[in-house]
Amino acid sequence: MAAGDLGPADGPALRVIGRARTRWGPDDCPKNIGRARERGAPATLEIDPAFAPALRGLSVGQPVIVLYWMDRARRDLLVQAPRHVDGPRGSFALRSPNRPNTISQSTVRITALDTDTGRVEVDALDCYDGTPLIDIKPWLPSIDLPPGETG
Amino acid sequence: MAAGDLGPADGPALRVIGRARTRWGPDDCPKNIGRARERGAPATLEIDPAFAPALRGLSVGQPVIVLYWMDRARRDLLVQAPRHVDGPRGSFALRSPNRPNTISQSTVRITALDTDTGRVEVDALDCYDGTPLIDIKPWLPSIDLPPGETG
Repeated sequence: MAAGDLGPADGPALRVIGRARTRWGPDDCPKNIGRARERGAPATLEIDPAFAPALRGLSVGQPVIVLYWMDRARRDLLVQAPRHVDGPRGSFALRSPNRPNTISQSTVRITALDTDTGRVEVDALDCYDGTPLIDIKPWLPSIDLPPGETG
Repeated sequence: MAAGDLGPADGPALRVIGRARTRWGPDDCPKNIGRARERGAPATLEIDPAFAPALRGLSVGQPVIVLYWMDRARRDLLVQAPRHVDGPRGSFALRSPNRPNTISQSTVRITALDTDTGRVEVDALDCYDGTPLIDIKPWLPSIDLPPGETG
């Protein structure tokens, strides 16, 4: 669909904080976190030792938002026509990994945690094994629910 | 608190897709989206014309997740002791803008939209005027609610 001529990305550089360890590759990766969950495959966030201290205070059972960098997705697609949608739609109106900044995010639950080694197990994740991780945030109803909806 | 010696950020470079237009500066910026909402000040997402086509398909009333780059926050703080929290806590256990990648996000509601000019008005935003925007995503209960909670 419509690809923009956007030039090189010239904004701030990210730090990769670790890698996702999942069962998935290009041939079998679930299309979204719901499908990943249905397939019952937990995933591990392998946080680089340099960043492991930043995990302090997280706990098992807690819902967190994981941000990951979809490094094989396209950054120049502004309008797309995915099969499940009726007609073309802008990338900011879709959760497609193809977008100007190929950040995907899911809200998942921590099932095990070792802050010394930097290993965080979560109930599911919908990305390829080895996908770069860029952030973990506690999910908070006051910030993450739409205004007017209560948690 | 504990600042890490993390070296330069050497991951993928972001594209800045636009700027937040808010009433806030360093002296009066609300600490979080709840406070921003209480103060009743809508905000505008000024999307760069090059990226405006990616807004197609969004609609007034829709909840969206806005990702913004907190360009004055610290990237080397791994453990912090904010006043509202009991003792030091890792940056991944907090919503502080100080984190390895200074991405903040809030779920807000679109109150007006012009996809031609790239102006998206939202009910509130808790960042300084001029803050770089990096993504807009439709909020979807199947991805953004914790597992086991229904929308």
